[in-house]
Amino acid sequence: MSHHQFSSSLLENAVNEFAKLPGIGRKTALRLVLHLLKQSENEVELFGNAFIQLRKEVVYCSVCHNISDTEVCAICGNPARDSETVCVVENIKDVISIENTQQYRGLYHVLGGIISPMDGIGPGDLEIESLINRVEKDSVKEVILALSATMEGDTTNFYIFRKLAPSNVKITTIARGIAVGDELEYADEITLGRSILNRVEFTNSFK
Amino acid sequence: MSHHQFSSSLLENAVNEFAKLPGIGRKTALRLVLHLLKQSENEVELFGNAFIQLRKEVVYCSVCHNISDTEVCAICGNPARDSETVCVVENIKDVISIENTQQYRGLYHVLGGIISPMDGIGPGDLEIESLINRVEKDSVKEVILALSATMEGDTTNFYIFRKLAPSNVKITTIARGIAVGDELEYADEITLGRSILNRVEFTNSFK
Repeated sequence: MSHHQFSSSLLENAVNEFAKLPGIGRKTALRLVLHLLKQSENEVELFGNAFIQLRKEVVYCSVCHNISDTEVCAICGNPARDSETVCVVENIKDVISIENTQQYRGLYHVLGGIISPMDGIGPGDLEIESLINRVEKDSVKEVILALSATMEGDTTNFYIFRKLAPSNVKITTIARGIAVGDELEYADEITLGRSILNRVEFTNSFK
Repeated sequence: MSHHQFSSSLLENAVNEFAKLPGIGRKTALRLVLHLLKQSENEVELFGNAFIQLRKEVVYCSVCHNISDTEVCAICGNPARDSETVCVVENIKDVISIENTQQYRGLYHVLGGIISPMDGIGPGDLEIESLINRVEKDSVKEVILALSATMEGDTTNFYIFRKLAPSNVKITTIARGIAVGDELEYADEITLGRSILNRVEFTNSFK
């Protein structure tokens, strides 16, 4: 695509800022900026300040490292949740995905990444030490490893598994298998193989 | 899609603001906000303020109504451009599209919309009166109508045509035809018909 010719440097600057975002091309950026131009001054201020305020004031929960408005996040501070179960995830997005299932009532531990020698990310760059401390100090009975089913995920799982071995905590991983609604013929062999090995008893209540 | 559960109201607010934009769903909004969270505080300030500053400080050219940083825009104020030719377009985006072709050296007139009784937009809501005044006062020799090839575009073209009839200005419209690179079999009949009626002489210099 040719470079846009703008008659306004303010417009050009706004388009450039949008186009820095991942997955936003210059055509989309221009469309979004022209949309904002049609909004009231107050609405555009609320828009721009939402990101500035978030970046400035956001804190990370001192217990689970999830994004939070307060020193301890709303999940860790909720007495209705099961504080004996901790689900280990890579990032904030995974917390939101699991919360959306409405199937989990325990707490989380956000690693802030995954062990990846290729990207120069080692165990020391992640919140693994704080996980070990948390298991030792708090009355955690089960740690659920919910990392990606990739080589890096497996490496991180194994590293945490070894570190937690001295404690008596139960360690589980989320089930791998055929997605609900998926047809068998399109499943990859490794997933299909795991789903047979880790088969569960069929009951009437199983949905 | 289920509603996201957020542990931070600042995060929720930022996601909501992004999701107000056309074509940005809540999943994309979350992805963009998490990207911004990884940027420095200064970078996020530059991002948010780009839109606030644009909305606050932008002006519209007093001659052609194009977006501008100054009272008369960079195109109208450029002595190298042909001030005797005025291209009438619907909006700022069309100016940018035509500028990108690098084929036009005249000036513009941005109507700010198109006559659309369905949407309650009449001639009085558009910069048509200022176009007539401009043709009468300035030494405009040709007005090029470059509106959409829709019923509303045709209506607007005809309205402007009648209003300009008393003056001696030459009125043209952009050519309709088969897009460069398109195959005939996929062209719609009306476009194909027009492209035959408005055929041009074949020359070696024609590209």
